[in-house]
Amino acid sequence: MKNLSINEDRLWQSLMEMAQHGATPKGGVCRLTLTEEDRQARDLFVRWCTEAGCTVTVDRMGNIFARRAGRDNNLPPVMTGSHIDSQPTGGKFDGIYGVLAGLEVIRTLNEQHIQTEAPIEAVAWTNEEGSRFAPCMIGSGVFAGLFSLEEGYACKDAAGKTLGEELARIGYAGERKETGFSVGSYFEAHIEQGPILEDEQKTIGVLTGALGQRWFDITLTGRESHAGPTPMHLRKDALLGAARIVTEVNRIGLDHLPNACATVGSMRVYPNSRNVIPGSVYMSVDFRHFEVKKLAEMEQELRRVLEEMQQEGVLEIEITPTAEFPTIYFAQECIDAVRQSAEELGYSHRDIISGAGHDAMYIASMAPTGMIFVPCENGISHNEIENAKPSDLAAGCNVLLKTILKRAGTC
Amino acid sequence: MKNLSINEDRLWQSLMEMAQHGATPKGGVCRLTLTEEDRQARDLFVRWCTEAGCTVTVDRMGNIFARRAGRDNNLPPVMTGSHIDSQPTGGKFDGIYGVLAGLEVIRTLNEQHIQTEAPIEAVAWTNEEGSRFAPCMIGSGVFAGLFSLEEGYACKDAAGKTLGEELARIGYAGERKETGFSVGSYFEAHIEQGPILEDEQKTIGVLTGALGQRWFDITLTGRESHAGPTPMHLRKDALLGAARIVTEVNRIGLDHLPNACATVGSMRVYPNSRNVIPGSVYMSVDFRHFEVKKLAEMEQELRRVLEEMQQEGVLEIEITPTAEFPTIYFAQECIDAVRQSAEELGYSHRDIISGAGHDAMYIASMAPTGMIFVPCENGISHNEIENAKPSDLAAGCNVLLKTILKRAGTC
Repeated sequence: MKNLSINEDRLWQSLMEMAQHGATPKGGVCRLTLTEEDRQARDLFVRWCTEAGCTVTVDRMGNIFARRAGRDNNLPPVMTGSHIDSQPTGGKFDGIYGVLAGLEVIRTLNEQHIQTEAPIEAVAWTNEEGSRFAPCMIGSGVFAGLFSLEEGYACKDAAGKTLGEELARIGYAGERKETGFSVGSYFEAHIEQGPILEDEQKTIGVLTGALGQRWFDITLTGRESHAGPTPMHLRKDALLGAARIVTEVNRIGLDHLPNACATVGSMRVYPNSRNVIPGSVYMSVDFRHFEVKKLAEMEQELRRVLEEMQQEGVLEIEITPTAEFPTIYFAQECIDAVRQSAEELGYSHRDIISGAGHDAMYIASMAPTGMIFVPCENGISHNEIENAKPSDLAAGCNVLLKTILKRAGTC
Repeated sequence: MKNLSINEDRLWQSLMEMAQHGATPKGGVCRLTLTEEDRQARDLFVRWCTEAGCTVTVDRMGNIFARRAGRDNNLPPVMTGSHIDSQPTGGKFDGIYGVLAGLEVIRTLNEQHIQTEAPIEAVAWTNEEGSRFAPCMIGSGVFAGLFSLEEGYACKDAAGKTLGEELARIGYAGERKETGFSVGSYFEAHIEQGPILEDEQKTIGVLTGALGQRWFDITLTGRESHAGPTPMHLRKDALLGAARIVTEVNRIGLDHLPNACATVGSMRVYPNSRNVIPGSVYMSVDFRHFEVKKLAEMEQELRRVLEEMQQEGVLEIEITPTAEFPTIYFAQECIDAVRQSAEELGYSHRDIISGAGHDAMYIASMAPTGMIFVPCENGISHNEIENAKPSDLAAGCNVLLKTILKRAGTC
């Protein structure tokens, strides 16, 4: 089994064929959850899994499980997967790589006539991106028992359609119960979606966990007035305040390195007219840190800055927490298995912490979990120009194969 | 003639009656250029002027002239006016006050049987606001010969309709030639649209001129990337750069006081998603100054800051000038006439420079011109809550009456 290797070409061809479902003119993918494109991609995945001899089941949340029997099918399966849905202007690899890497592992085992002790399941989770239905990662969240099926079904898109309705419409409201399953261990292969591996020329990222996150909405209210007749000393410029917060948020991020991220991603200015002093501004703040204590400090420091600004009496400032994701620490045995596999296969690697959310974070709450990152070009993801090298994708899949064999056991 | 005074109640009632055309639920006015509301308001103004014995003519740009004959009708008229159109969420005074103040002057002269040497014309200029058709002040601009009639007609609204078409549709494409008239002098009464008079408790603002303006568009291009997996040191955050520019623009304004304004009124962030580092930002910059040299310095300083940022190699920055309005210095004899009238009437007054654009700025290029400001509540304008005191509006109108009599001469 020393030279056991997945088929790089087959993996790449499968990715390219899958990318035709929702293909965009710019070379990306728009495959929003439970749209026609998502349905077609799901159908293709199910067909491929069936052709690979798997038993395919779909649970009531539309999560798809393709099971390759083991020698002892009473053992909990080793699961691997990710998601099929994409961002509106997404790429060809985010999510779907982890799904098809699982399939490629199964195809390779079939080819090599390798039986595992425990069964293996390749899985595709519903609605990871959260682009069409908020919140994100709801499929794996329901599977892990962190959300109820009702909560999952109630998610609405911008047109008011519910996830439950749309699941039924495309024929993926399965019959399998959505909770209560035991998972031996779970691994997810994914493109990094960041620039670190490329920057340091490493092939494999061994995930040790994920940054905790705290998100906020901030609104600043000043006074809308005419940009000409309002002298500088009588202004209540909400955008000037917002600019200060952007600068401070960045400073707070830098002050809490390493493993800190601080971002203002969204800002809306009212009335947003070139000759009117902005009367109000909405903005988001996204703080992430690997240490729970430091993350709390970042929030505290932001609140101190806002308090100070409020005291100056020019602007009214309101801050509302909008989301909180705890820091995730993956299971040591899974981290070790991934690192050891990379090592044995001779790939350059480094431990890495995920800054983004992944289905693996929810599964980590119910089963020993690990993740494998491979580099993506310029660290760009959630973008139609998202790209990755066939050899890197193959390397990640080989690490996944070896790791799964370690955890599922070979006969 | 010592006690000659306009009728405060009649002026107020006329303003309130006019405000019903385009009245909004919040107490403001939405009377966009050449809409049905604008037509109704024009019709009312024409009716009132006709009832006041004026000869009403409309030029090919839709500018309305209500002429009260003088003793010597070969003398160029003393003109006074402003505009009927409003912002989409405008108030009851901006523009229309100057139009109805002119009418009130004529009504008062009629009542008192006062004949002037030169004729007097109350005028309403087409499309001052520029909200529906850009550019603003095109009616007075064409009259002053700064734009051609064709340029005026070609202005398009967001739906693609032209100003020329819409003028014909509402029946205000007149037959009078739009240029070539001689104007003895022009006065415009207007609410201040800023907080200075109120702040200093003055009733009358004697306009000496208007700030020169330079407007710019700036776009910053960084790299859109995921807010989690992209470490702080590998980011190209366009919003962080934009925040720095907002802060610098404000600093440049403060560094060039007095009579300097510096505003970022508009900003759009792409992709504007809370967990994506902004890849690009569009923003506007609006610089105003009364000294030509200082205005140039402000631009120079902004360009130096952008150059410095560009040198840092993180962001691509592009700056495009979008508009330039020269500093306006009103005619000394008109300034003096307004100041002297305020003084004689016993109103508190101060010299003031307009920060905003007014039709008077274009007319100043062809005729001796002056302006009269009255306070507005909290300096708020271009807003449905725009408000002004009846007594202040009357004071401004009395100053206008006295000034017109000085310039038109009495028999």
